[in-house]
Amino acid sequence: MSAFPPPGAKAELEEGATLTPRFDRDGLVTAVVTDAGSGHLLMVAHMNAEALRLTLDTGIAHYWSRSRHALWKKGETSGALQTVREMRVDCDQDALWLRVEVARPEDTCHTGRSSCFYRIVRTDGDRHALETLEIAKLA
Amino acid sequence: MSAFPPPGAKAELEEGATLTPRFDRDGLVTAVVTDAGSGHLLMVAHMNAEALRLTLDTGIAHYWSRSRHALWKKGETSGALQTVREMRVDCDQDALWLRVEVARPEDTCHTGRSSCFYRIVRTDGDRHALETLEIAKLA
Repeated sequence: MSAFPPPGAKAELEEGATLTPRFDRDGLVTAVVTDAGSGHLLMVAHMNAEALRLTLDTGIAHYWSRSRHALWKKGETSGALQTVREMRVDCDQDALWLRVEVARPEDTCHTGRSSCFYRIVRTDGDRHALETLEIAKLA
Repeated sequence: MSAFPPPGAKAELEEGATLTPRFDRDGLVTAVVTDAGSGHLLMVAHMNAEALRLTLDTGIAHYWSRSRHALWKKGETSGALQTVREMRVDCDQDALWLRVEVARPEDTCHTGRSSCFYRIVRTDGDRHALETLEIAKLA
């Protein structure tokens, strides 16, 4: 497993043609995951170099679980495997965008939903309440 | 400016109706920002408690700039102000999703693009090259 090249100067980082991820001090980049078909936001996760390498090599999304401190092949247990249809990187290469197809969409979130973003922040003066969306409205 | 309540137990965090952001050890949560109209991914940023509070109070997106170590009213200089149409929080409340309208979409990214995600990762065996999309194809 080869390492990724170290980030270069600003011009190369932002306009270059080489993937040089800027891992943070924990060795992670942020991954935003959307459904390749609908475009819906599914989850936000993190990748270390090994997870990114495995994702690129296999086409199946792998992450780093910050809570379990372990490599995490998404869906290995639940069946909600993510096949990566496209990966993009942002301007300063500390975030990735994965457009995926999910094998069991209903199990994308560990709470048993098709997206982790099932609550809307409703502001009423100084109060900020969360409204939980029905599954059918998650899109 | 009042503080946000501290995160509760897992059930409350994941299914509750109270916004209790789980700020990381730097005091930040991740913010995923999409266009409220098109749904396109625009950028990934971070918020501390003050940026989140200002965003909720004013309806204009504020972030914490990790590079400049400063509060950042997005678009204050460029004009690409973001009006928040909806905010969601994820299952474990360490990520927010902002659906925004941008005043000057062409200046969303500091590189002069409407999205920070303008490069696709192309894999050819062990090589990973970045293909830069034309502005018109950013959607």
